[in-house]
Amino acid sequence: MRDMILSILVSALLVIVSGKLILPMLTRLKFGQSEREEGPKSHLVKAGTPTMGGLMMIVGVLASTLILGSDSLVFALPSVLVFVACAIIGFVDDFVKIKITKKGLRAYQKIIAQFLVGIVVAIYCYKTLGSTIELPFSNAELNLGWFYIPFALIVVIAAVNSVNLIDGLDGLSSGVTLIYSVAMGVIFIYLTQIKDSLGFVMESEGMRGMVIFCGAIAGACLGFLRYNSYPAKVFMGDTGSLALGGAVAMMALCSRAVLLLPIMGGCYVATSISVILQVGSFKLTGKRIFKMAPLHHHFELMKIKETKIVSGYMIVTVLLCLISLLAYT
Amino acid sequence: MRDMILSILVSALLVIVSGKLILPMLTRLKFGQSEREEGPKSHLVKAGTPTMGGLMMIVGVLASTLILGSDSLVFALPSVLVFVACAIIGFVDDFVKIKITKKGLRAYQKIIAQFLVGIVVAIYCYKTLGSTIELPFSNAELNLGWFYIPFALIVVIAAVNSVNLIDGLDGLSSGVTLIYSVAMGVIFIYLTQIKDSLGFVMESEGMRGMVIFCGAIAGACLGFLRYNSYPAKVFMGDTGSLALGGAVAMMALCSRAVLLLPIMGGCYVATSISVILQVGSFKLTGKRIFKMAPLHHHFELMKIKETKIVSGYMIVTVLLCLISLLAYT
Repeated sequence: MRDMILSILVSALLVIVSGKLILPMLTRLKFGQSEREEGPKSHLVKAGTPTMGGLMMIVGVLASTLILGSDSLVFALPSVLVFVACAIIGFVDDFVKIKITKKGLRAYQKIIAQFLVGIVVAIYCYKTLGSTIELPFSNAELNLGWFYIPFALIVVIAAVNSVNLIDGLDGLSSGVTLIYSVAMGVIFIYLTQIKDSLGFVMESEGMRGMVIFCGAIAGACLGFLRYNSYPAKVFMGDTGSLALGGAVAMMALCSRAVLLLPIMGGCYVATSISVILQVGSFKLTGKRIFKMAPLHHHFELMKIKETKIVSGYMIVTVLLCLISLLAYT
Repeated sequence: MRDMILSILVSALLVIVSGKLILPMLTRLKFGQSEREEGPKSHLVKAGTPTMGGLMMIVGVLASTLILGSDSLVFALPSVLVFVACAIIGFVDDFVKIKITKKGLRAYQKIIAQFLVGIVVAIYCYKTLGSTIELPFSNAELNLGWFYIPFALIVVIAAVNSVNLIDGLDGLSSGVTLIYSVAMGVIFIYLTQIKDSLGFVMESEGMRGMVIFCGAIAGACLGFLRYNSYPAKVFMGDTGSLALGGAVAMMALCSRAVLLLPIMGGCYVATSISVILQVGSFKLTGKRIFKMAPLHHHFELMKIKETKIVSGYMIVTVLLCLISLLAYT
């Protein structure tokens, strides 16, 4: 518990302080958001708001995890690396969007990059954690065998793209991921105690590192909300959203509670499914299911205020995470 | 932990469901807010929004605490009673404001009512908890002797009025009190374990009841935010804010960590102090220190958006609560 509290505090304060430096820099470099032409019209006022705010988060997450977790990095270090690798993919995409072409990297370029990260993650997790995952709300485990590797790969790619898709309203992805990370941190605290009581010192230390990593991500989101809550002064950009997506995947995989991810991250899932359904339906039947995808834009076009959608998503995520935590307490 | 999670879930879901019934009722009865003439002009749009939303919270808090905590009510039951007693004072005030005179109850009438509740609380706590309070961040205790009674009385009156004063922006008092209650719940979980390990079965049970009470208050705030977050469809009114104030005081007193209240509730304290300074300065020198008191209106007149002030207060409260929790973990 103490680990997590310190980690949240250090990360949040670092993000808030670094924001004071990075935000004017982004503004001066004219790293402004270019709103999608096909997005809601009300979003045109957001054009020009600095993006790439994810850079602030990197400061907090790196410092907090590496300093506080220096002696228990077996899972936390790979998690930080995935976080940074995804941030780099996102940074390149953001940079291309701002300086070269509004469309950013091509879809296949992003997918290849994510695939490379995902395959490394999958193999690392397979080797260190084995191929079993837990069946939540039961004592049963599921041994996926070699199938664990494509499974983990899909988890990484799905999480990264879901967090990217949900990042469309002020404070939405940071708010939801804040709550998810706190809940995952609580799960890792529990796992630390379990492993410790069983005498698995190494594994217990590894889990402790993940507690710190979860706290660092939660703190980074909390600190970022200082600038990103409505009306946002900065967006995280793909730099932030891909990085958070990588972190979300690592938390799920390392806890082996990966089957809880669709529950705790219900808002991520709903967002991605809405896009899949919308595109699928349009291609198959020519009709649209939602007024606009992802789902949060559908709600916006239903005249629900942006702030209300964000608080709604956050409340739902709290409830879903609490239900999921019942599997562990 | 499980107690707290269940309590938050039950309370939040009950508040959300009961809101569906109570909200149309409040609208039909025309129990609308009358904005203070001397408040910020931007708030005039809020006139007519239903108030007394605190009624929803009562449903959640009562059901959650009494059902889940039925076997450990030694502190939780008095806490619920104080919550309800303060809600009644607030309800009368709201009712008078809407139906009789815009000014509501007179100041002396409210203070007398709060004094009566406070003195009962002070004596009850003195008899059941004794006169010692803990010095946070140390192992020391402070024995206040009979002075505990006026001290506890001041805590109750200060907390009730502070939460009442902070209730001026959409989602502000519910958001801050949500975070405070979760943090206090964590402290009570810790106290439950301590008392349990020392073999104090009765006290441990009492603390467990308070875990449930904290969860119930947190859940009620969470559920209420469904309707109260910006743009608010309902206000809690004095019904809600006095009740939450009573709950805040009871959590602090029963934990004996009452000296942490000014830290964890830093936003409450800042709000009250801003009013005291403003009134004091105006009476003494004829000058105003703030553009408007309480503090959140000062920020509004500095052109900071309402939503940004609320998220700022919430972020500060999270950080202050995390720092305070370091005293226990």
